[in-house]
Amino acid sequence: MEKVSVGIDVGGTTIKVGLVDSEGNIFARRSTETRPEERTSEQILFDISRLVLELLSIADVPMDAVGGIGMGVPGTVNSEKGIVTYSGNLRFKNVDVMRVLREFFRGMPILVNNDANCAALGEARFGSGKGFDNVILVTLGTGVGTGFIVDGKILEGKFGEGAEGGHICIKMGGEKCTCGQRGCWETYASATALVRQTLNSYKRYPNGIMGQIIAADDNITARTAFLARKNGDRRAAKVVSNYVGYIAVGIVNLVNVFRPDVVMIGGGVSHEGEYFIKMIDRAVRRHAFGGKQNHPPKVVPASLGNDAGIIGAAALVMPR
Amino acid sequence: MEKVSVGIDVGGTTIKVGLVDSEGNIFARRSTETRPEERTSEQILFDISRLVLELLSIADVPMDAVGGIGMGVPGTVNSEKGIVTYSGNLRFKNVDVMRVLREFFRGMPILVNNDANCAALGEARFGSGKGFDNVILVTLGTGVGTGFIVDGKILEGKFGEGAEGGHICIKMGGEKCTCGQRGCWETYASATALVRQTLNSYKRYPNGIMGQIIAADDNITARTAFLARKNGDRRAAKVVSNYVGYIAVGIVNLVNVFRPDVVMIGGGVSHEGEYFIKMIDRAVRRHAFGGKQNHPPKVVPASLGNDAGIIGAAALVMPR
Repeated sequence: MEKVSVGIDVGGTTIKVGLVDSEGNIFARRSTETRPEERTSEQILFDISRLVLELLSIADVPMDAVGGIGMGVPGTVNSEKGIVTYSGNLRFKNVDVMRVLREFFRGMPILVNNDANCAALGEARFGSGKGFDNVILVTLGTGVGTGFIVDGKILEGKFGEGAEGGHICIKMGGEKCTCGQRGCWETYASATALVRQTLNSYKRYPNGIMGQIIAADDNITARTAFLARKNGDRRAAKVVSNYVGYIAVGIVNLVNVFRPDVVMIGGGVSHEGEYFIKMIDRAVRRHAFGGKQNHPPKVVPASLGNDAGIIGAAALVMPR
Repeated sequence: MEKVSVGIDVGGTTIKVGLVDSEGNIFARRSTETRPEERTSEQILFDISRLVLELLSIADVPMDAVGGIGMGVPGTVNSEKGIVTYSGNLRFKNVDVMRVLREFFRGMPILVNNDANCAALGEARFGSGKGFDNVILVTLGTGVGTGFIVDGKILEGKFGEGAEGGHICIKMGGEKCTCGQRGCWETYASATALVRQTLNSYKRYPNGIMGQIIAADDNITARTAFLARKNGDRRAAKVVSNYVGYIAVGIVNLVNVFRPDVVMIGGGVSHEGEYFIKMIDRAVRRHAFGGKQNHPPKVVPASLGNDAGIIGAAALVMPR
């Protein structure tokens, strides 16, 4: 009998649970609110366990058809012990996730990992990294998240403290990062950074097409510069091309060390369109070490979207 | 019977061959000149093969006591195929090393890899990384070389084109690197860079203790600033502390992604003394992501020195 894997994607706002088949398809799902500000870790984990049991029952999947349970969590995870060392979003500190889940699912393979690592694994197995053993997922959001699959396995670093590619310094003495250091890649390449770069350009040139768009919306978002560029705004085009430069310099850094088969771009900004990904791809090819004599990887959009978390968490417990 | 491994360290000037026991000790060795400017790759490889046979004969090691032959080469190596794709130092381009060596050593396990990767493997197995499965070796020389051991295995990247940590950009728009890009780590943290930084300081302040040392030697080397600092030169102390800052920012970048067990520093500069390594260690601890809540690795000097190449090449063919 083919086994079903349970994937749990725990976010600061929503908990998503899915039943995933061996092809990476989610065939049943449920979600609930996390509410970490009013619930203890114990309460949240009990709720998750109940949700899994409920979903299995509704989907009519008997316990012995379940191959394992995987969980992705935003924060630092000691995956060997199944302990969430620290998660700001969940307000978890040294929470023994494994112990609680084992009470509900005795004898079941259970694995916990960082959510960005899970997403990278999901994309590597079933998304746009399918068929490759060495991939990098770069997620451009509030920050810049990175996940590394090396020889088919998640690179987590000691105590799960690695894979923080967003905090590679690309500009010594540069802008201050939320982490306390200066010049981190994410201070230039996150969607948040793009908004700031857009605002700076607007302040200097308030009267162009971009200015009109901003006035009409009474707002600046990560989409503003892209939209203004499409409408022919030269300054907006400059904002976008500078932003691509920032993204590319960080990807080149990762590529020079890992030389993966493929680099995948996720996060809201990645939906901007093929031209945007192609701009990044060209810049990476131009600047990667060894130039054209070497074989820089292709840069492609991630393909699983919001499901990468569930699918990747489930992939933790799937046989390779 | 305990097997002997052959380690071959091919440099642009010298070829070194050693017989290595399972504890990583070189118990017999030979060397010869490489002379790549006047010899073809075929001639060089024939010479190497003869040297190995000679050494085995002198050391009285029968062929069936040899477990395998490992070779480290400065350049890009397709280790799967045993082909040196490109080596500027050796003037090799797509040289099938494996094919030539197999003519001499039929049926023998033979592996070829990049020399910096070999050194990292050697240090991980038998040097200051002994006992750890995840280590990084940073070699501060003409450039900045990096080798990564992940889960006990060399991280080479596709077609052996990875592990170029010296070409991580730490300063966008910064100084021009030999690779054609700007702001690469090695343009700030190599011994060559230190000489340049020393010269720049000397030009601005020619009359201090450092000025006297330079005048007496009529020369500036990577040791000049260290020496002047020891003699109480404030400007020299500043050169050294800035240099430590450059080294540390690159190590922090690697540490934030890999979180290895230990980071080892090799190259001539690493012999400067314990205080210098400690300065780097402190800076890395201060700036690594997550600060003191996390567990940044210790920075230590590499311990195998010039033998890392032979020992690491031999380690390629040793069972783990």
